[in-house]
Amino acid sequence: MKFCPSCAAPVVQRIPEGDHLPRSVCTVCGTIHYHNPKLVTGCVPEHEGRILICRRAIEPRRGYWTIPAGFMEVGETLQQGAARECEEEALARVEIGSLCAIVHVLHAEQVHVMFRARLADPAYGVGAESLETVLCQERDIPWPEIAFASVEFCLRRYFEDRAAGRNAIHYHTIA
Amino acid sequence: MKFCPSCAAPVVQRIPEGDHLPRSVCTVCGTIHYHNPKLVTGCVPEHEGRILICRRAIEPRRGYWTIPAGFMEVGETLQQGAARECEEEALARVEIGSLCAIVHVLHAEQVHVMFRARLADPAYGVGAESLETVLCQERDIPWPEIAFASVEFCLRRYFEDRAAGRNAIHYHTIA
Repeated sequence: MKFCPSCAAPVVQRIPEGDHLPRSVCTVCGTIHYHNPKLVTGCVPEHEGRILICRRAIEPRRGYWTIPAGFMEVGETLQQGAARECEEEALARVEIGSLCAIVHVLHAEQVHVMFRARLADPAYGVGAESLETVLCQERDIPWPEIAFASVEFCLRRYFEDRAAGRNAIHYHTIA
Repeated sequence: MKFCPSCAAPVVQRIPEGDHLPRSVCTVCGTIHYHNPKLVTGCVPEHEGRILICRRAIEPRRGYWTIPAGFMEVGETLQQGAARECEEEALARVEIGSLCAIVHVLHAEQVHVMFRARLADPAYGVGAESLETVLCQERDIPWPEIAFASVEFCLRRYFEDRAAGRNAIHYHTIA
């Protein structure tokens, strides 16, 4: 941020009174503009033992595989966002279940929240942000071609928990 | 947002190509500025059966009681943020435990994430953002003077779970 979104004057980085971290402060109107981590919400959609994964049509990591996930929007819950992303990327309706993973991706300034899910019906397709989508057995997951470390973490914990018959929450931090 | 934080030109609200929601788009450099929910992280700090609560010295809800919580900062995990807020508001060191509540506060465009916690040692005090802090028995919680609906939700579920000997996760949405 170089300019104030409220008044267009230059901003400077300084620690406001009573604060402990540098913020973007407007040199004219004095507004303090905070910068915070963003939420990414997603799910592991299962149908008859197989997982719906998507090959990305967009950067970053175009051509690599992911579970449906994306930035949470204002006005929705994490669960609604996860279901919306699944509908957008894989044209699939899901019932969102328990929380599977919370991954702090520090370098990207993101928190990834991933739920377990079930396809509400067997229909799925290829959304605008996907090159292809597939209902994949665990043994066929293309591990070397998974797009993001957070997705690999979530999928591995998902399969471990499924094998063990539990629904745990898993935390992970990626520097 | 009225002006582009990158180049100071006016922004307009429009739906970018391939998107489905209006965004702030710069009329000169074309940068799309997304607006997403913010994370608030907090904890229920317990010590010998009592809960550490803080009376707020700042708006909103000055004079009302809360558990330690605040906006998550870039570069920290949710757990680190919850511990930091407890140190700032109540001068107390905590060990963060299991996830207790996720509350979607839609009108505030916030997601509140609250953990169970234990005081690492019995010391606590009054931080700059607090008027007073107290280690409070369940029966003495000032329910009509709790600052936020998300905090009341979390505390009520916390005590219910404690009585039942379980550590569940609770979801709630406040329009």
